[in-house]
Amino acid sequence: MERPEFALIDWIRSRVVDGGPVKLGIGDDAAILRSESDRDWLVATDMLMEGVDFTFPPATAALVGRKALAVNLSDIAAMGGRPTAAFVSVALPIEKGVEFARELHAGLLDLADRHHVVLAGGDTNSWHGPLVINVAVVGEPWGPQSITRGGAKPGDWIFVTGTLGGSISGHHLTFEPRILEAQALTKMVNVHAMIDISDGLAADLHHILKQSQVGAVLEAGGIPISQAALEANDNKSPLQHALSDGEDFELIFTVSPEEGRRLLTTWIESTPISHIGLITAEPGCWLKTGDQLEPQAPLGWSHALNEAGGDNDRHL
Amino acid sequence: MERPEFALIDWIRSRVVDGGPVKLGIGDDAAILRSESDRDWLVATDMLMEGVDFTFPPATAALVGRKALAVNLSDIAAMGGRPTAAFVSVALPIEKGVEFARELHAGLLDLADRHHVVLAGGDTNSWHGPLVINVAVVGEPWGPQSITRGGAKPGDWIFVTGTLGGSISGHHLTFEPRILEAQALTKMVNVHAMIDISDGLAADLHHILKQSQVGAVLEAGGIPISQAALEANDNKSPLQHALSDGEDFELIFTVSPEEGRRLLTTWIESTPISHIGLITAEPGCWLKTGDQLEPQAPLGWSHALNEAGGDNDRHL
Repeated sequence: MERPEFALIDWIRSRVVDGGPVKLGIGDDAAILRSESDRDWLVATDMLMEGVDFTFPPATAALVGRKALAVNLSDIAAMGGRPTAAFVSVALPIEKGVEFARELHAGLLDLADRHHVVLAGGDTNSWHGPLVINVAVVGEPWGPQSITRGGAKPGDWIFVTGTLGGSISGHHLTFEPRILEAQALTKMVNVHAMIDISDGLAADLHHILKQSQVGAVLEAGGIPISQAALEANDNKSPLQHALSDGEDFELIFTVSPEEGRRLLTTWIESTPISHIGLITAEPGCWLKTGDQLEPQAPLGWSHALNEAGGDNDRHL
Repeated sequence: MERPEFALIDWIRSRVVDGGPVKLGIGDDAAILRSESDRDWLVATDMLMEGVDFTFPPATAALVGRKALAVNLSDIAAMGGRPTAAFVSVALPIEKGVEFARELHAGLLDLADRHHVVLAGGDTNSWHGPLVINVAVVGEPWGPQSITRGGAKPGDWIFVTGTLGGSISGHHLTFEPRILEAQALTKMVNVHAMIDISDGLAADLHHILKQSQVGAVLEAGGIPISQAALEANDNKSPLQHALSDGEDFELIFTVSPEEGRRLLTTWIESTPISHIGLITAEPGCWLKTGDQLEPQAPLGWSHALNEAGGDNDRHL
């Protein structure tokens, strides 16, 4: 059956016009709000559903609570922002009892504390259905400006944090949102465009290219492949995993070549960054292997839909 | 079986300390956020679940979308605020198809447009479970200050908007959030404390009394009873319905006696306001019928839990 969200989102977008304090609404990692006298406020929200985004086991209550917050912290990080407050709504399965609910919130609050995020409200419900948790996070940019998907310029170097692929084997429940890395980046360089990898490297880079009206050439040899992708041992190569697997929650970003060079020599965070390609003026995305160029489709999402269980959702 | 949210909330509250931009977190109709250079931002969130908060029929997709936004607009109104941006997360039942999803959002967007609220983001999912919708709304106070539950003073007059009781017969799906009324109030008088009625008049007044550390005497003859409560024709009197039924989404507020008198003579909005009692220095809540005083329990919520289907939820 057709998934209703497919046809819905374009209709919603066509129906909605930003205005008032909404500087940037639907279509980036988080919304940007701004009152007259003020700097930006960032808002991200994400809903996770049992049986779709996770199953028990391998997930635990604490890991699901943690992940429900972490995906939003990742979105705020991808806007160049610092998360400050979280709002947690849950539909708790009655039969799982109080201890389950407490562990869920403990997992969430541990991560919140670590990043100085205050649980500022929410809505706690129970029912006889599966667990559903929605988290909304408010934040503010580290620098004077939020970083959108729309600022990549021809000639920019494309970078990615961490290593990619194979998150379905466990990383999607335990990943560290790249908040400190985003902070370091905004201090060191002028980041032109940024997004977090929820759908897959190729798919999420495509969002940057589309919003920035540019193209890209990716260097196959430069793409950092995770241990999980190397060990996947299925009908996809490790590189294909790194290009198309969802839920890595690493950051893709672009900077000028001068600043890119400087980043490579001065980056001291423990999370590695890798220079994986170039932004081009011509649209399209190409994968370069040695001297050979192949078109790179915005793979990732349809894959994740079938396999990763974490990506049947579509951000507005 | 014990409902997990009962034991959970106190534990969550004990675990969380407001800080950073969170001026007021858990425990009012909406959170108050404030950055250094700025005025208040308000954030409210609410989750509605099929089979718990509504059923199809009598609900329709459009009415559920509308209600999911309206309950949050009511919370922002109860803070003396103007809603500006909404974030909508849904778990859509796949088998209901695209048209259902579109109607849900159309119902929500019609109400949003009417109050100049921009849909600024969200998360659209589908699954084989029942409909779950979470809406988070951002707003800002009409006046220089947000209005909390904690400002009622001995001697204050207690007012309520509209008429009360019997919302289960349909009003809980079609109510008008009292945004314009809250705006008029904040312009005309200094509102000391305010809350919207989600759990029931007696239960929600109790929240004001507790937060303000005061008591109240309600005048039975002054309580405005809705047509639906008059027609309920069950084992509860119309007055009992008005005191204890949930989901009226009217505003309870307190002002000084001087301003209360002025309000009664100068109020020109089409929604009536009624003077229903007095705030006292001694704690406790009393219902006055003629010369007789009876203690008034914070009824409403346990009632609604069994009957109204809209109130097994607990706001943080």
